Amino acid sequence: MRILGIDPGYATVGFGIVEYDGYKFVPIEYGAFLTQADMDFPFRLKSISDDMDYALGKYRPDSIAIEKLFFNTNHKTAIDVSQARGVLVLCAVKSGIPIAEYTPLQVKQSVVGYGKAEKTQVMEMTKRLLRLSELPKPDDAADALAIAICHGHCCHSLLHKY
Amino acid sequence: MRILGIDPGYATVGFGIVEYDGYKFVPIEYGAFLTQADMDFPFRLKSISDDMDYALGKYRPDSIAIEKLFFNTNHKTAIDVSQARGVLVLCAVKSGIPIAEYTPLQVKQSVVGYGKAEKTQVMEMTKRLLRLSELPKPDDAADALAIAICHGHCCHSLLHKY
Repeated sequence: MRILGIDPGYATVGFGIVEYDGYKFVPIEYGAFLTQADMDFPFRLKSISDDMDYALGKYRPDSIAIEKLFFNTNHKTAIDVSQARGVLVLCAVKSGIPIAEYTPLQVKQSVVGYGKAEKTQVMEMTKRLLRLSELPKPDDAADALAIAICHGHCCHSLLHKY
Repeated sequence: MRILGIDPGYATVGFGIVEYDGYKFVPIEYGAFLTQADMDFPFRLKSISDDMDYALGKYRPDSIAIEKLFFNTNHKTAIDVSQARGVLVLCAVKSGIPIAEYTPLQVKQSVVGYGKAEKTQVMEMTKRLLRLSELPKPDDAADALAIAICHGHCCHSLLHKY
């Protein structure tokens, strides 16, 4: 199963594509869609939409896993990240590929086995599970790979349950 | 000039189309795009996108005016309304039609002449400016018409300024 993990944002959208056969994960590609700060916000949303459509067409994942948002502070950032996430989810649903959503807690629980794990622990475990020689960069890409791993684990346990 | 005003939301998106010649406003159409609460959220976003694309194609506005978001409370609602707004802005920017954004304060200031006006005052003034026999329903449509009026006033003053 090929999974596209997405860490939503409006300046940087992390993405990570992994293959999972129920036993091991193989990284296919990871990176980030970037938008320029001097671009009008509607055009940043269009850029994100274009990049997401391109990635969906290029990598043809079997499923898409995207992080759920949760904010305590900074309303402006929360609104703009949410707008970008709306665009990403729209691209996903238009593609017809199944979408799964996970909270940061679920991702930590799944990747490290502990919901209150530190960010560095998640990154280190992601690196190990994917047999990478170094930590994935940028951090947004590492987060996206972790989300993809979380989805792999969840699908796997669902397959075994039913 | 034909203006499409949009009041963003995920359950109800208010829309209002008005013609403005620099002197008077003529209402063309108003209403709301509705999404079902029992629909998965990604599909609600797709429904909003489809309705927005349909309205843009049907009414071919010269410009689109959409309310800026501001939240103090209820993070869940804020995130979901923001996601829906992202989708609406994406449809707008993809259409190539110019987009303007206004805060609720700017709308009140423009329609009633007073930034701290009550919602009922804005609705009453919207009804009068559009020579409607009754208050536009739902409230989201009335808000969308007020946003369109605000844009008409702003464009008009810009035209006179330059």
